[in-house]
Amino acid sequence: MDVIRTKAALRARVAQWQAAGEAVALTPTMGAVHEGHLSLVRLGLERADRCVATIFVNPRQFGPNEDFTTYPRDEEGDLAKFRSAGCDAVYIPDPGQMYGTDYKTEVTVTDISDVMEGASRPGFFTGVATVVSKLLIQSLPDIAIFGEKDFQQLAVIRTMARDLDLPTEILGAPTVREADGLALSSRNAYLTPREREIAPSLHRAMIAAAESVRTGAAPHVAAEQAKRDVLAAGFQQVAYIDIRSQDTFAPAEALSENLRIFAAATLGSCRLIDNIAV
Amino acid sequence: MDVIRTKAALRARVAQWQAAGEAVALTPTMGAVHEGHLSLVRLGLERADRCVATIFVNPRQFGPNEDFTTYPRDEEGDLAKFRSAGCDAVYIPDPGQMYGTDYKTEVTVTDISDVMEGASRPGFFTGVATVVSKLLIQSLPDIAIFGEKDFQQLAVIRTMARDLDLPTEILGAPTVREADGLALSSRNAYLTPREREIAPSLHRAMIAAAESVRTGAAPHVAAEQAKRDVLAAGFQQVAYIDIRSQDTFAPAEALSENLRIFAAATLGSCRLIDNIAV
Repeated sequence: MDVIRTKAALRARVAQWQAAGEAVALTPTMGAVHEGHLSLVRLGLERADRCVATIFVNPRQFGPNEDFTTYPRDEEGDLAKFRSAGCDAVYIPDPGQMYGTDYKTEVTVTDISDVMEGASRPGFFTGVATVVSKLLIQSLPDIAIFGEKDFQQLAVIRTMARDLDLPTEILGAPTVREADGLALSSRNAYLTPREREIAPSLHRAMIAAAESVRTGAAPHVAAEQAKRDVLAAGFQQVAYIDIRSQDTFAPAEALSENLRIFAAATLGSCRLIDNIAV
Repeated sequence: MDVIRTKAALRARVAQWQAAGEAVALTPTMGAVHEGHLSLVRLGLERADRCVATIFVNPRQFGPNEDFTTYPRDEEGDLAKFRSAGCDAVYIPDPGQMYGTDYKTEVTVTDISDVMEGASRPGFFTGVATVVSKLLIQSLPDIAIFGEKDFQQLAVIRTMARDLDLPTEILGAPTVREADGLALSSRNAYLTPREREIAPSLHRAMIAAAESVRTGAAPHVAAEQAKRDVLAAGFQQVAYIDIRSQDTFAPAEALSENLRIFAAATLGSCRLIDNIAV
């Protein structure tokens, strides 16, 4: 497995494979690799001949009071996991490869960036769309794979890639969960043992809300009940629990096709997000 | 000369040349082609093996009260001129190739987009950076050429291409002028014969200001004199006449290297812009 540190080397490596007729998948990550990330790599290797993972903790997608400095980092452990999953290369950009001191360009996806994570975390989706457009342009892969755990992020990236005419197909991969339903996330490392016991109640409340919408409850009533359940279970704060169209992110007025329930809530120092189909 | 109407055909044609070892130049235009545009094509053919011109009047770079609907259009005439200059292909995107009905993505270059044309025309540089990033990603040329007549636009595009890691070198080409000094522009077609006589006074006032800065005048004093000269010559309004660094666009306090004088002024229904080195 190659470890690539410069964008020039990344571009050359991917182009070399493509010139030999091999399709290349890219799986961008911020490291702190878990089974969810490895499922992206496995999907990449199913759909393409080569898979390149990237590790870059992107400062531009963290707000001033967020966890950029404390975000878990474990380069050696990450490389071992990517190697064991069959990655052909890992791109870990050297300092200055992504944002020079004079960096000025932002990519913004309007409309679908305004709600939920976008409303809770100003600038987050511009940071994401910017770094992902750079990674995709640096490598020009055939496909790129992102987790459905960050469902709104996946939609923002898919829209950005379509709108900017990038030659890359964007694929989503299903959320990987612990046995008790907790969605895998690098940030789960922030949970204390006690919080870790409480954490799956978010997913349980979402399943209950989805079931109650399917059996006739108004979406906003079901969502309100889920918020009460999550707070009762011990979460400190609910940023949102929303039932929306998974295509347009318009709030659901009644049961219909393609609804999804989206949640973000804080437990101790950890902000958890999750989403499931209704 | 090929006339290409879809982004898929554009990408395929450029890739085909590049696979054969030929370097490709792109010269994006809004049509209404004049000698200035043809000089870009000639520079493209000097620096690359193939030159593709594009014609697209980009709605996203016009403000609500600007001249999008009346902007001069002459596809047949443009094609004949590009053919005679030796273009290998012209890309004229069919409706819907550039912005679908659900289009949501914007590319913004901060800081250098805020002054002069950016201050006078809100949204203009976001429209420019967005359309040019799309054209460059659709075609992935080796070089792309833009006129120095739109000097600030050239800087915005150069910054965007660098920041997004596009595999394309951005080149500027010198402003082409009429014998009396008026910079060529598609919008000169809006000038009445009387206005056409007045128009070169903008360039003359800029030359005088540059000379007076070189011989010791304070930049802001020379710029104020140029504004008075332009208004006295018959221009209705001066949006700005500024002396700035051509690298950072910081206002000049005194004579130094790399200063440039930038101007925008209205004559009748025509907004003229120009710039020269101090």
